[in-house]
Amino acid sequence: MLVSQISEFELINRIQEIVSPQNESSRQPIKNLGHDLILSIGDDAAVFDSSITTNIMTADALVENIHFNLEWTSFRDLGWKSIVASQSDVASMGCIPTFAIITLGLRPDLPVDGIIQLYEGMSLACQETGGTIIGGDIVASETFFISVTIKGTLAKDKKETQILSRKNLLPGELLCVTGILGSSSAGLEILKNPALRKLNSTMAEKMIKSHVHPFPRVSEGAKLTTFGVKSAMDISDGLITDLKKMCLSSKVGATIFLDQIPINPYLRTLFPNKWIELAVNGGEDYELLFSGNEKVISQAQKNLTTQVSIIGEVTSEQNRVNLIDSTGETINPTSTGWDHFKSKEG
Amino acid sequence: MLVSQISEFELINRIQEIVSPQNESSRQPIKNLGHDLILSIGDDAAVFDSSITTNIMTADALVENIHFNLEWTSFRDLGWKSIVASQSDVASMGCIPTFAIITLGLRPDLPVDGIIQLYEGMSLACQETGGTIIGGDIVASETFFISVTIKGTLAKDKKETQILSRKNLLPGELLCVTGILGSSSAGLEILKNPALRKLNSTMAEKMIKSHVHPFPRVSEGAKLTTFGVKSAMDISDGLITDLKKMCLSSKVGATIFLDQIPINPYLRTLFPNKWIELAVNGGEDYELLFSGNEKVISQAQKNLTTQVSIIGEVTSEQNRVNLIDSTGETINPTSTGWDHFKSKEG
Repeated sequence: MLVSQISEFELINRIQEIVSPQNESSRQPIKNLGHDLILSIGDDAAVFDSSITTNIMTADALVENIHFNLEWTSFRDLGWKSIVASQSDVASMGCIPTFAIITLGLRPDLPVDGIIQLYEGMSLACQETGGTIIGGDIVASETFFISVTIKGTLAKDKKETQILSRKNLLPGELLCVTGILGSSSAGLEILKNPALRKLNSTMAEKMIKSHVHPFPRVSEGAKLTTFGVKSAMDISDGLITDLKKMCLSSKVGATIFLDQIPINPYLRTLFPNKWIELAVNGGEDYELLFSGNEKVISQAQKNLTTQVSIIGEVTSEQNRVNLIDSTGETINPTSTGWDHFKSKEG
Repeated sequence: MLVSQISEFELINRIQEIVSPQNESSRQPIKNLGHDLILSIGDDAAVFDSSITTNIMTADALVENIHFNLEWTSFRDLGWKSIVASQSDVASMGCIPTFAIITLGLRPDLPVDGIIQLYEGMSLACQETGGTIIGGDIVASETFFISVTIKGTLAKDKKETQILSRKNLLPGELLCVTGILGSSSAGLEILKNPALRKLNSTMAEKMIKSHVHPFPRVSEGAKLTTFGVKSAMDISDGLITDLKKMCLSSKVGATIFLDQIPINPYLRTLFPNKWIELAVNGGEDYELLFSGNEKVISQAQKNLTTQVSIIGEVTSEQNRVNLIDSTGETINPTSTGWDHFKSKEG
């Protein structure tokens, strides 16, 4: 059955069946964060009570043929990823997701079962990492898009913890990332060029998984605030692009040491001519980029089960990001990351 | 300059210039509602403190060639209307808008000046009716779309007032609407068929204005809660369609008297064969449909400066909506409103 063959009412009913049990199971932890859901999907708005707390709101949209391709992305993975992209922004603020509002623009020829699987993927991401889908809007559109707005809150009382911001980088601080970089964009390259799959199919599958089923660093972000970290950002557009944004916000510069950037060792094997670009410009890693003094970073490295790598330092050279290779030379990666609108030649 | 010729950073900077002064001016009233904006556009998320209160969240999306046409809608009006559509949902819950998150999907060939005017229209709607734009996302898309998520809150302490819901219609209650119906869809008809403009240009312009620059009933919604109204919905898809949804949620039916539906008298003149359909099925009126006993409704009629018309009553015949003409006959309007996906023939 296609979207054009089902009424809006029936479609929302089927979505409610997926989302509602999840709402029920999530009510308790959300209540503990001072947010009690009173009314979910089915009215002109969702309703919730809040207590005295610090909240955040953030949005992220995925558009067909720009951010995803149904040829190689399942609806379930797409739903998962659309929530994860927003949860990652919540993580980078040191917060926990509470409520999600989903707006879908649907082509009439999309399969209803696909939309159901999309919501199953979204629900799963909420169950695993936090938050509850409480409402949204569904409209017809020539281009399939998913727009997620997510509300989050500090996990603890604001006396004990604080919001992480892009603006708080300080010269002299160490720059760190969680996890490894470049695997998601490597996965996308493999999806686009199936011949690469044959070189090492286990590693290829792992990289594809990094691309279609990423994990946000929500618990890591929340813990970082308790170690005294004050500045963080999630890497969604690529390390260099996002670091430049962070430097601009903080009015500082940065030096990055290429051989300290954590990568999957097979990234070099599979992409001998491109691995640097994938590591520093590849998007959708959803890892956290953050800073702190030695003591703070040492605490993060000791107390997080997730790998934390020191990749460089914050400098006072405003808006200058240097990339140093293993011989001490400053290198210039071929691309400076994605800009959403400028033409590739620009 | 086109969207493809400006960097994302520059575009967001220009938007911030429009939105930020508005943020500043709005901080005080928002603080009074228990919401203090700490961090607006420019980080991974916006940050605000909340006090103990009841909140709502709702979303509304407008898609090019489905909900708007740039041939006859200015960017400024489009921005205005995109905020108003969400403010209207907030109004129907008896709440006041606090924060708005905007996600834009932009065609690369859209003019940058148009996008700036879009935000000017949005800011104006926030200034007039409430709320502040605090963040969002901008992505590339083959189809131009605007997705607005808005947070609202009860204007007064929840001991003094309560959320309005679609679910609270009671058999025997009177059904009422604010303002007049059908003018917005009449305006759209005139825009599509300029010959109609010549019949009565003043009235035609007024109807066009209803379509491109509607007003949400936020202050009316907030006041209705204090009169004892418990059930309301905004009319965005047409009276019959929305009333049916409301009846379904409340497990009741309704009878509507056609000659009591408030319309612009020129609606009949300009559309002698279509005025009924425009009045009962025309969308985007953004008027409030609500119910109450005689005492409650009489209070609403006395205390609101906006026209309140009794158009029928709630019945116990589940999901049955009867439309009675001036001779007492039950009539069946040709269409049952818009369903967003079903093909027109369906």
